[in-house]
Amino acid sequence: MTYQEVLENAKKNIAPKCKVCPDCNGVACAGMIPGPGGTGSGRSFQIAREFLKSVKVEMDAVHEAYDPDLSVELFGNTYKYPFFAAPIGGMPFNYNDYMSDYSYTEAIVKGSIDAGHIGFTGDSANDRFFLDTMEIAKATGALQVPTIKPWRNDIVMHKMDLAVEAGVPAIAMDVDAAALINVKLMGGTVDPKPQKDIAELVRHTDKPFIVKGIMTAKSAIRCMDAGCYGVVVSNHGGRIIDDTPAPASLLPEIREAVGPDFKLFVDGGIRSGADVFKCLALGADAVLIGRPYCIAAYGGGAEGVKLYTEKIATELSVIMMMTDCRTLADIDMSKIRFL
Amino acid sequence: MTYQEVLENAKKNIAPKCKVCPDCNGVACAGMIPGPGGTGSGRSFQIAREFLKSVKVEMDAVHEAYDPDLSVELFGNTYKYPFFAAPIGGMPFNYNDYMSDYSYTEAIVKGSIDAGHIGFTGDSANDRFFLDTMEIAKATGALQVPTIKPWRNDIVMHKMDLAVEAGVPAIAMDVDAAALINVKLMGGTVDPKPQKDIAELVRHTDKPFIVKGIMTAKSAIRCMDAGCYGVVVSNHGGRIIDDTPAPASLLPEIREAVGPDFKLFVDGGIRSGADVFKCLALGADAVLIGRPYCIAAYGGGAEGVKLYTEKIATELSVIMMMTDCRTLADIDMSKIRFL
Amino acid sequence: MTYQEVLENAKKNIAPKCKVCPDCNGVACAGMIPGPGGTGSGRSFQIAREFLKSVKVEMDAVHEAYDPDLSVELFGNTYKYPFFAAPIGGMPFNYNDYMSDYSYTEAIVKGSIDAGHIGFTGDSANDRFFLDTMEIAKATGALQVPTIKPWRNDIVMHKMDLAVEAGVPAIAMDVDAAALINVKLMGGTVDPKPQKDIAELVRHTDKPFIVKGIMTAKSAIRCMDAGCYGVVVSNHGGRIIDDTPAPASLLPEIREAVGPDFKLFVDGGIRSGADVFKCLALGADAVLIGRPYCIAAYGGGAEGVKLYTEKIATELSVIMMMTDCRTLADIDMSKIRFL
Amino acid sequence: MTYQEVLENAKKNIAPKCKVCPDCNGVACAGMIPGPGGTGSGRSFQIAREFLKSVKVEMDAVHEAYDPDLSVELFGNTYKYPFFAAPIGGMPFNYNDYMSDYSYTEAIVKGSIDAGHIGFTGDSANDRFFLDTMEIAKATGALQVPTIKPWRNDIVMHKMDLAVEAGVPAIAMDVDAAALINVKLMGGTVDPKPQKDIAELVRHTDKPFIVKGIMTAKSAIRCMDAGCYGVVVSNHGGRIIDDTPAPASLLPEIREAVGPDFKLFVDGGIRSGADVFKCLALGADAVLIGRPYCIAAYGGGAEGVKLYTEKIATELSVIMMMTDCRTLADIDMSKIRFL
Repeated sequence: MTYQEVLENAKKNIAPKCKVCPDCNGVACAGMIPGPGGTGSGRSFQIAREFLKSVKVEMDAVHEAYDPDLSVELFGNTYKYPFFAAPIGGMPFNYNDYMSDYSYTEAIVKGSIDAGHIGFTGDSANDRFFLDTMEIAKATGALQVPTIKPWRNDIVMHKMDLAVEAGVPAIAMDVDAAALINVKLMGGTVDPKPQKDIAELVRHTDKPFIVKGIMTAKSAIRCMDAGCYGVVVSNHGGRIIDDTPAPASLLPEIREAVGPDFKLFVDGGIRSGADVFKCLALGADAVLIGRPYCIAAYGGGAEGVKLYTEKIATELSVIMMMTDCRTLADIDMSKIRFL
Repeated sequence: MTYQEVLENAKKNIAPKCKVCPDCNGVACAGMIPGPGGTGSGRSFQIAREFLKSVKVEMDAVHEAYDPDLSVELFGNTYKYPFFAAPIGGMPFNYNDYMSDYSYTEAIVKGSIDAGHIGFTGDSANDRFFLDTMEIAKATGALQVPTIKPWRNDIVMHKMDLAVEAGVPAIAMDVDAAALINVKLMGGTVDPKPQKDIAELVRHTDKPFIVKGIMTAKSAIRCMDAGCYGVVVSNHGGRIIDDTPAPASLLPEIREAVGPDFKLFVDGGIRSGADVFKCLALGADAVLIGRPYCIAAYGGGAEGVKLYTEKIATELSVIMMMTDCRTLADIDMSKIRFL
Repeated sequence: MTYQEVLENAKKNIAPKCKVCPDCNGVACAGMIPGPGGTGSGRSFQIAREFLKSVKVEMDAVHEAYDPDLSVELFGNTYKYPFFAAPIGGMPFNYNDYMSDYSYTEAIVKGSIDAGHIGFTGDSANDRFFLDTMEIAKATGALQVPTIKPWRNDIVMHKMDLAVEAGVPAIAMDVDAAALINVKLMGGTVDPKPQKDIAELVRHTDKPFIVKGIMTAKSAIRCMDAGCYGVVVSNHGGRIIDDTPAPASLLPEIREAVGPDFKLFVDGGIRSGADVFKCLALGADAVLIGRPYCIAAYGGGAEGVKLYTEKIATELSVIMMMTDCRTLADIDMSKIRFL
Repeated sequence: MTYQEVLENAKKNIAPKCKVCPDCNGVACAGMIPGPGGTGSGRSFQIAREFLKSVKVEMDAVHEAYDPDLSVELFGNTYKYPFFAAPIGGMPFNYNDYMSDYSYTEAIVKGSIDAGHIGFTGDSANDRFFLDTMEIAKATGALQVPTIKPWRNDIVMHKMDLAVEAGVPAIAMDVDAAALINVKLMGGTVDPKPQKDIAELVRHTDKPFIVKGIMTAKSAIRCMDAGCYGVVVSNHGGRIIDDTPAPASLLPEIREAVGPDFKLFVDGGIRSGADVFKCLALGADAVLIGRPYCIAAYGGGAEGVKLYTEKIATELSVIMMMTDCRTLADIDMSKIRFL
């Protein structure tokens, strides 16, 4: 299978809510929730994409030839690439029944592993989903980062225990899901989390704990002060509230606030190796990619996930070579411009 | 009835001049006066919308969970929400005969009351309209703010007397109607008002007096110096002159000019709870919403007005929760960005 | 006849090169020369329009009521309005045979006079045209400003003599026509003019002499130093070279360079009373309007010209009233903003 | 043949990958590689065009009349015009079989010579192409600048020897081809070049040596320090990596870094005499034009190349006359603005 064939298959399998647009930019699906769109006008999704497109890359071919090193250190491990599949659930709800949450998660985990890598996995109002996901983790070497919704702390801690038991390398919680209409439609109770509740969760485990859904430097600092390993700068793919800034555009100010060591992930509109490169240059340690992995999984299952992962890796390698970056440490603000 | 059904009905009842566009932004109706459009090129309407869309909201879910308090203190009373239906008349003229000025005003007043709230009501060259409106006020507990056109001062004072007699909590005058072509087509004589004429109107009543149609800090100060309770920053929905700035964009400089206590209302392109939030962050104490209430009334009468009111309230509540604003006082410039 | 009827007629009479677009903005006719378009990509025309649209007007209705005074002092006379029909020729070439240069010029002159006003008239490679124009001048009280192309100085002076003999109040020369392809196609020889040649022309007559086609402060000063009465800031409707700035955008820097007394006219994309107002606020003493007068003449002859003149005057009057400008002297930079 | 006929023929001969768009701007062919498009989203191509369009020209017709001198000193010779056909190969691959690399190169060289000028020629993974090109050089007076791909230095030096033997005035190497997918698809091995490798190539010949594909001031200085005669500021027509800046937009900072004497060429989106003018004003000594020469060659062979060359020369002459530039030395930053 080629990635082009994955896309062709996906067009059939993921219709009609997702059109597999040439540029997955939130225009065709604006406002479609349930569905893959951004909320309301869809601008929170679109702006994420527009911002990344606007960042320019400093091309430079006057240097030694080499093969760039794309590996990243996280959670005490070395991972092959600084990008991961984002945690996603509710597939039948947002796309269609071609994939269940179970089959999607399996495709992400297995496809990532086949590419020599790992992925993030999700959670939902249906408790069965998280249990299944941890079964997949146990069966595949725990090569995933489970992401729990902001339930009452005791429920979150119960799910954390399941994840620890499965042996995962880290645990995340997407606090921005507090306003996610889909969760409420399915009967769940999710809420914002104050720093003290986050600190309680951090204390509950030895695993690195990551809060996803941070869009201000203030909240990033609260998470750092609560003992988190890092945060994901994210507006949940633009699905929570309308007219939020592009997550990647916030990286410089959040990086400045938290200092060089606190881990920053980011998602929102990342579609290519060039986009990964730009986010790292803006201050991220690694990035998450969402919707394109849905398309890859609907179009090719685990093989589609593997092919997309390798495609992004190749693109990132070329752009590192053509900007004179031997390792991720060379990717900084001097390699981009805003014009 | 659901709000979605209100929109479906409205498409039939309000055609052909209003298309009930997904985003009510002044594009489809550009230049349509009579009709709901902005004057000339329609840009004064469109720009109001474009500006509000461009303001970004600072999402933040790292905090305690709570139900935000949306109430606002005005005219010595506490109102449930910081947004109100704007004063509108000339329905058959600008839309069609499906609603008269009377039935529209009744729907606004009753629907607002059913939502536990109040609305603003209008005035026209036909004196019967204002008399009818005051009859509605008397029959419904005077839960409205009548808005008088800038006639000769003695005529304005006569209408003010009728409003006081009806027991309304405040009285407004839309001075920008001085150039409104519709009023002149119907034989009325309206004019700009100097500070001394406004001061005379203020002295004429114990009710809070509000001037609507202020677009400069200079004029806001004149109204403050004349003893007004507040002003509505407004370009009359873009219907007076072409190429005026977005009213909401003027809030910061006008707020700086008048200080923290003088009341600022604003209208123009406010379509969602997020837009209400942005206007409050920019310096408004409360906002007026125009055309969407016309659509709500044409599509569902008083029930449509109630449903739209509650929809905006829900949206505002979510956005306050997701930006860590317990009360309206927490909504300030730190909660938005212009990027 | 109404102005709306003039437009309806014009659509038939001026087709196919001009579409009588709702906003005459250089998009539909881009690159059409011969034809009414801007040269090359058409951007020099379009940008003029875009810039004027981008300027915002400061609405203000808190002041005394009055009827604004639109009159302007020029050439020692008082004219009713600060806008004039621009000098235009080559009608069969650029539009069609419905009008000859003669019939067009007659419509402009007579229509302007019927509105109590005057207009500018043109010149071409066919010497008959200028002679005819001066005959019209003699027959109608010399209420026009003839505009001569930059021929050899002796030829210009000969045409100036004809104009003086006809009794015109002032004489202009459009120096930017030096690169006008139409003139060369018709066999004429036109060239740029150095300051000394312009000074020679100024010395040749007691009439105020105006150079049209100035786009830099440097050239405006050269004309002032040569003894000119004023200049027209103009890129010849965007018909000379591609990608020039909007003439009106240059007014502030040119006004600053020449001081308050040297007369500045401007043209390019002026379509409404609001546009006239903006140009005056930016530093012009008066403006010229081109293509809309062609449409008015093709659609209604002298009556169309009169109706369009009165339409612009009404619009300018309303905008002066709604910005608190009693006279043209009140129209300054404080009445606009760039946002 | 007229240039208009060249375009008409080209539409037939170059279909379907190139549409011969009215403005050759990278929109219709976005992402088409093989094909004439920019890589990925095509933005690197499009942005080059958008930037040049955004630069404004300072029109000025108040000066002496003269015929501008368009000649430029390069490589110790005087050339008629400061623009050249860019080095291009892979015609059957990127367009179609109507032209071979040989027939295209012959058309460029002969057409340039017929216009009294010279052009740049290309190189490919097929060694036969470069040999053929040098045969053309020998047969036509060596009026071309061959451009070698960044092969291993010994291979580059071998091709340089062939070029010196043919008698060319200068030699170029397009280092940005290091990431060109087409070369790799054809089995070649190309790489970035460090300063020391470039210095080795410079030492290998007495001919002026130019590195093409420089997009940072840092790399330009490396080339200068390596002894190069100059560099071509270029992103290879946007075909290497996505989202690079417009090459012409980098000219001011690169010129400031290298000082006034080091030669700067530029390409990317140059389509008219006005664009040549803008690039010279921004700091270039001369420019290269790519895709339009392909269209000219497909539409008219050597005659098409000659006609396009003369068209650009005429446009440049007019714009120099209308901006008061007698020679190229008069074209500086004071003749443009960014508004």
